Amino acid sequence: MGTKSILVIHGPNLNMLGTREPQHYGNQTLADIDQGLHALAHADQARLETFQSNSEADIIEKIHTLSVNRVDYVIINPAAFTHTSVAIRDAISAVKVPFIEVHLSNVHAREPFRHHSYFSDIATAVICGLGAEGYYAAYRHIQQL
Amino acid sequence: MGTKSILVIHGPNLNMLGTREPQHYGNQTLADIDQGLHALAHADQARLETFQSNSEADIIEKIHTLSVNRVDYVIINPAAFTHTSVAIRDAISAVKVPFIEVHLSNVHAREPFRHHSYFSDIATAVICGLGAEGYYAAYRHIQQL
Amino acid sequence: MGTKSILVIHGPNLNMLGTREPQHYGNQTLADIDQGLHALAHADQARLETFQSNSEADIIEKIHTLSVNRVDYVIINPAAFTHTSVAIRDAISAVKVPFIEVHLSNVHAREPFRHHSYFSDIATAVICGLGAEGYYAAYRHIQQL
Amino acid sequence: MGTKSILVIHGPNLNMLGTREPQHYGNQTLADIDQGLHALAHADQARLETFQSNSEADIIEKIHTLSVNRVDYVIINPAAFTHTSVAIRDAISAVKVPFIEVHLSNVHAREPFRHHSYFSDIATAVICGLGAEGYYAAYRHIQQL
Amino acid sequence: MGTKSILVIHGPNLNMLGTREPQHYGNQTLADIDQGLHALAHADQARLETFQSNSEADIIEKIHTLSVNRVDYVIINPAAFTHTSVAIRDAISAVKVPFIEVHLSNVHAREPFRHHSYFSDIATAVICGLGAEGYYAAYRHIQQL
Amino acid sequence: MGTKSILVIHGPNLNMLGTREPQHYGNQTLADIDQGLHALAHADQARLETFQSNSEADIIEKIHTLSVNRVDYVIINPAAFTHTSVAIRDAISAVKVPFIEVHLSNVHAREPFRHHSYFSDIATAVICGLGAEGYYAAYRHIQQL
Amino acid sequence: MGTKSILVIHGPNLNMLGTREPQHYGNQTLADIDQGLHALAHADQARLETFQSNSEADIIEKIHTLSVNRVDYVIINPAAFTHTSVAIRDAISAVKVPFIEVHLSNVHAREPFRHHSYFSDIATAVICGLGAEGYYAAYRHIQQL
Amino acid sequence: MGTKSILVIHGPNLNMLGTREPQHYGNQTLADIDQGLHALAHADQARLETFQSNSEADIIEKIHTLSVNRVDYVIINPAAFTHTSVAIRDAISAVKVPFIEVHLSNVHAREPFRHHSYFSDIATAVICGLGAEGYYAAYRHIQQL
Amino acid sequence: MGTKSILVIHGPNLNMLGTREPQHYGNQTLADIDQGLHALAHADQARLETFQSNSEADIIEKIHTLSVNRVDYVIINPAAFTHTSVAIRDAISAVKVPFIEVHLSNVHAREPFRHHSYFSDIATAVICGLGAEGYYAAYRHIQQL
Amino acid sequence: MGTKSILVIHGPNLNMLGTREPQHYGNQTLADIDQGLHALAHADQARLETFQSNSEADIIEKIHTLSVNRVDYVIINPAAFTHTSVAIRDAISAVKVPFIEVHLSNVHAREPFRHHSYFSDIATAVICGLGAEGYYAAYRHIQQL
Amino acid sequence: MGTKSILVIHGPNLNMLGTREPQHYGNQTLADIDQGLHALAHADQARLETFQSNSEADIIEKIHTLSVNRVDYVIINPAAFTHTSVAIRDAISAVKVPFIEVHLSNVHAREPFRHHSYFSDIATAVICGLGAEGYYAAYRHIQQL
Amino acid sequence: MGTKSILVIHGPNLNMLGTREPQHYGNQTLADIDQGLHALAHADQARLETFQSNSEADIIEKIHTLSVNRVDYVIINPAAFTHTSVAIRDAISAVKVPFIEVHLSNVHAREPFRHHSYFSDIATAVICGLGAEGYYAAYRHIQQL
Repeated sequence: MGTKSILVIHGPNLNMLGTREPQHYGNQTLADIDQGLHALAHADQARLETFQSNSEADIIEKIHTLSVNRVDYVIINPAAFTHTSVAIRDAISAVKVPFIEVHLSNVHAREPFRHHSYFSDIATAVICGLGAEGYYAAYRHIQQL
Repeated sequence: MGTKSILVIHGPNLNMLGTREPQHYGNQTLADIDQGLHALAHADQARLETFQSNSEADIIEKIHTLSVNRVDYVIINPAAFTHTSVAIRDAISAVKVPFIEVHLSNVHAREPFRHHSYFSDIATAVICGLGAEGYYAAYRHIQQL
Repeated sequence: MGTKSILVIHGPNLNMLGTREPQHYGNQTLADIDQGLHALAHADQARLETFQSNSEADIIEKIHTLSVNRVDYVIINPAAFTHTSVAIRDAISAVKVPFIEVHLSNVHAREPFRHHSYFSDIATAVICGLGAEGYYAAYRHIQQL
Repeated sequence: MGTKSILVIHGPNLNMLGTREPQHYGNQTLADIDQGLHALAHADQARLETFQSNSEADIIEKIHTLSVNRVDYVIINPAAFTHTSVAIRDAISAVKVPFIEVHLSNVHAREPFRHHSYFSDIATAVICGLGAEGYYAAYRHIQQL
Repeated sequence: MGTKSILVIHGPNLNMLGTREPQHYGNQTLADIDQGLHALAHADQARLETFQSNSEADIIEKIHTLSVNRVDYVIINPAAFTHTSVAIRDAISAVKVPFIEVHLSNVHAREPFRHHSYFSDIATAVICGLGAEGYYAAYRHIQQL
Repeated sequence: MGTKSILVIHGPNLNMLGTREPQHYGNQTLADIDQGLHALAHADQARLETFQSNSEADIIEKIHTLSVNRVDYVIINPAAFTHTSVAIRDAISAVKVPFIEVHLSNVHAREPFRHHSYFSDIATAVICGLGAEGYYAAYRHIQQL
Repeated sequence: MGTKSILVIHGPNLNMLGTREPQHYGNQTLADIDQGLHALAHADQARLETFQSNSEADIIEKIHTLSVNRVDYVIINPAAFTHTSVAIRDAISAVKVPFIEVHLSNVHAREPFRHHSYFSDIATAVICGLGAEGYYAAYRHIQQL
Repeated sequence: MGTKSILVIHGPNLNMLGTREPQHYGNQTLADIDQGLHALAHADQARLETFQSNSEADIIEKIHTLSVNRVDYVIINPAAFTHTSVAIRDAISAVKVPFIEVHLSNVHAREPFRHHSYFSDIATAVICGLGAEGYYAAYRHIQQL
Repeated sequence: MGTKSILVIHGPNLNMLGTREPQHYGNQTLADIDQGLHALAHADQARLETFQSNSEADIIEKIHTLSVNRVDYVIINPAAFTHTSVAIRDAISAVKVPFIEVHLSNVHAREPFRHHSYFSDIATAVICGLGAEGYYAAYRHIQQL
Repeated sequence: MGTKSILVIHGPNLNMLGTREPQHYGNQTLADIDQGLHALAHADQARLETFQSNSEADIIEKIHTLSVNRVDYVIINPAAFTHTSVAIRDAISAVKVPFIEVHLSNVHAREPFRHHSYFSDIATAVICGLGAEGYYAAYRHIQQL
Repeated sequence: MGTKSILVIHGPNLNMLGTREPQHYGNQTLADIDQGLHALAHADQARLETFQSNSEADIIEKIHTLSVNRVDYVIINPAAFTHTSVAIRDAISAVKVPFIEVHLSNVHAREPFRHHSYFSDIATAVICGLGAEGYYAAYRHIQQL
Repeated sequence: MGTKSILVIHGPNLNMLGTREPQHYGNQTLADIDQGLHALAHADQARLETFQSNSEADIIEKIHTLSVNRVDYVIINPAAFTHTSVAIRDAISAVKVPFIEVHLSNVHAREPFRHHSYFSDIATAVICGLGAEGYYAAYRHIQQL
């Protein structure tokens, strides 16, 4: 199978990356991560778009575009919406595009309310605690399928 | 009592209706349902407005308009917000307009997190699993009161 | 598809309707509701039978008759048995006739033990809080399928 | 206030009293208890009826008769139905006759499933562990009101 | 010890056996099972009675007869009453006849509400998933004691 | 058996009776109730002492006196300590005097935290909702044993 | 409305303030806080009494005095009794004087058993984490009503 | 320490204040409260900004500005988002500005789902039930630190 | 269908049978049971092997041999591993050999932690409380399929 | 390190020791235990005080004296207060003296409400079921530190 | 009674003692503890064996030897198996040798999953947090019985 | 930092990989995965060992060797032991070597008992659902640190 077109979605507060709680998230900025992803895609001549929003509605509507604008796979770090957004879950179920859930930090080592995800049971895979490498591992896994 | 003015609110992802998980939601589009509602209202010479949004804030603000822009009853399908939005619940409590909660599919036959609603205990009635007919049954009930 | 033959089952205490807790159930009697249902069926030339019992065993055995006495759909208001009768659930599963669950009042606004139903997850649809109109909406939905 | 007319309802298995698990229920028969109640009523020139059934439906229908056949108060030992019958609860709510709940044994000293009652929160009073004296105490309390 | 006299009780909906959900219950009818049991009893010159009812009250009263009509052991398939009937549990405790609980299907592989039984903790043994063979294994075990 | 010597213990806040929340506790004062109890005891030539305290420690120490100062039975209304005092439970277990638990109001109709008692499972009997009559019923039951 | 007479109740261990766990409670002593409250009351010519006890019974009896000794409002820091004393809750309900609940530290940031209060649901207001300022804010609020 | 710069955030539906459920929130408008806060700040020559939004995303992004636009303290009434927004919690943790949580009404006296807050365990203090005075008490506490 | 080849697995502590808690397990030794099983198999000319181990790893590896060493059915008494071994569950799922779960005693009449099994939901049938007869009933059922 | 000064606290009902439930607590009196402790201390020339009270307030105030009257270690058997007294927990936290929790009987073998302790998580060690030896083991451990 | 023969069982990872998490377990090695126990036994001329294993099966089989190889008492530190091994619980129940459960650290101050033990309810006594002294206290208690 | 020495541990049943439930685990064998890992290590000139066992004890003892046989990082797929083995958790805590937890399938999409891990809260990272790629992503992450 050829290279796949991928949409990467970063959830709320990830625009603050590099300034926020470095013990959980490290010093890299989101731009650094996106650049890393684009470098991988460029090497594969794969189409890849990255998108960050603090708005649940904007993320839902971005996902809705997938039904017309053909994307093969989603990599999503829903951040805080992991634990609260049934609406984003429904959006991604609606468009029927497979996805991998990524978290920068190990959510299992944090507050109990972070142990439940509205995404994991319908994801292909879940990666947490690898930092930016989590996105890259997801990318590589998708291109290998 | 005369015919009543009604606002119909459709929650997140309902704009995707007809494309999304037909085993749960059927093939009708939201435009089809709205047309059906307008036909009923037209026959009754009743005022009826329909509104869809994927944004919790937009739905809240639409509801706030009810306090100045006189509406007698709301029909709301909160979709995913059914299970997560205290803020929409509070908005509709604040404006004190009675409402009927409608779901296209039978939420009781789906995932456990869909069995709790932040709306049902303050609704007048709850209808689920009738598809578009659920909206029409709600409409007819309101006009008969 | 042609008109459908329907059995309407009313559970325990519904024979007291019109005398019982009007704030929950209104002033209509069960005879009024049955008359309304027969009027709808008459207009459609549909076969419709109504049945009320305070006995779980009698309801089970009425449902068993469906396997020989061809009925297309059941409308059931299990009343108090909603929350306690696995045996009626099993009876209706055994005969494999689809059904709609109806409640006169909005059970979600009442005691917590009324929030669980042994019927909803296997029903086609669930309607509560529309009063007698709930039965009529169920009837109309069935004839439209 | 004059003497009150009372219906005493004994639930399932109480007809076996005197033969069944004497460590919980003692050696008296149900006839002994009813005789004691009739003696009290006779002394007061009060109307009193006693009724036992193993059938939930029969108890419901007995309670329904209260709405036409004027009775001022019910004394009920729902026995096993204490823990399972929403339908009898609904019947007694429907006829709006006040009642006292009586248990021969101390249900709090038995299996955990006997600690919940569908009757206690709407009863006037609850008496358990006094044996037959529980019925007599209930009777006296009612006549004194 | 000599052959034992046995009462076999079949709970609600078992009269529908052979027509109902064959993936759970197989194609045998209740008459087939009863015939198998009578054949075993006949071979042992043992007294055996079979009884089916959809009525909790009738089952309770059948059990009450055991205190006068000497029976050594009960085999009971409480079916749906397994999960809801404290009254049948109390009846069988009252007459003090030991019993084995039998289920045709493996209840542990079905809905969670079927995992709790009001009978198992006071039964001698519990057998599920053996189909008709479950009754026969219970029969053989009793005659061997 | 002869008349029995009885200690009646009234828990915290019961000294306020007659002034406090009459919808739950009525207008009688504690002195009224004690007078009623003494009248009954006088008629039976029975020894009876009444004791009220707002102090858990004082109630514990009163109960400890029972081991030297022979008392046959205790009637206790632990009031708020019903739900919180393992220490009084232990005291009454230690002296091994049987007791009846009495509540003026029907605790089952009040807040959920009032539904659990540290006394009921080791009491002989539990009476609630009979008002002062609850104490008298307990007294009569004890003298009849 | 004129100035109000206020009773301030400090619960167990608050006499140790200034020596105890300064990370939770700061360095001020209880005398410092009481002096601050008296200064405010003096400025308003309001009657104010402060009371500390480590004894649940003494606090209950102090509250009972309110029914004769007219006080308009109570400010209470129940300290550890917040989580365990139904008896103090009952006392304050009995005398029907409105109250504000104050905690020096933010109880929500401490052990889970400190998250439940027997007082908050019947308080007018709850303030925690403001240190001594919490009492003063409560005082000012009461005088402004 | 000098006067502090403060951002006051009002969550969803608070723009409706004065029109909405006065039994919970009183008759003051949000403009009244903001005016009161500005008067206090003016007297102290302190910088103070107030901000209301019905949008979670807008509140998150307002909080993000704190990392560049130096503010010393936040006063936040998250309203309905108290119970549902992990994303706002994460935003305020990310910028590391201390905050006080304020609620106009006593949330502990309302529905159980209002008893949990995603903010309280990381707040400096929590004030509820003081109405507008809650904001002022928070303001005064911050300026005194 | 011809006779089936069967592996019987006995879990930890079953080698102690006949010495251990006879009120739960009776006086038969494991050798007695195995002899009974071999006698049945001999009569049927069926292949049957019995295996006991106190080691989870040894049981797992015995089960792994089934994938090469053709066995048609397993009878397993997982004993204490019933409640704790996901690894044996996974082993038996991996080899895809159907199995019947047998317990000598009635586990439902014992400690609550014995009420959950990691095997029952994937077993064909579950038998408990029949003693050695449970194994024989399982054997007969398998040969009859 | 030299010998340590120790305070031994005995909670409610322990003054009854030797008369109370010997199956749980044995026949020794509290004086016997105290004598054993003093003998150990005398041999070590260590300062040791023993204190028993049935009053939570008295125990709290005894603990408060530790902050002025230097004691190195506390041995506490909180008895019933183990499960109910946050106030004693707070007192012992406030004075910052390390302590060992001792129970005469094995609380884990008794009622479930005795399985939770408000002391164990902040104790140095917990000993239960050794009878008087538990105190002596605690004493020896402290002197060896 | 004469000196008793004792088996001391150390569970998994205890062979690592002295190297592992000294904040929980101290610096002593297991050999140090065993030497201390042998010294005590030697002084008493008592038979004592110590045994460590990381294997549940080996511990089970060691316990089985007790039924032939007479031992009067077991001291067991089940370590991690405390929380997971029903099989070792069953082994020790089977051989009917009384035992004391010992933990080096205070398990109540650690993760919640360490608060439940499969051993405590059937142990004679439980000691935690005394370090090696816990074993010695258990030894002394046994020899004194 | 130089290349790191890595131990890869595969838990129970993973030796069956490629034969077992391919819908969850795919067709690769464990030898295939190990070969992939060795290829990566060879390219980096890194030391890497792989180890599979079905025995909890063997895994514990393998982990204990890490304290003498210097390894920098562990990659562990605890398989079924994920959900049951406190002992392996304790072993890996004891040796203080950091580790990444890997699962071939997405455990969040399987049975609820697979949602809890005794490893995740102390792991560096958790990867599930990537198949063999999960091990390789873990390897690459470790070498990049």
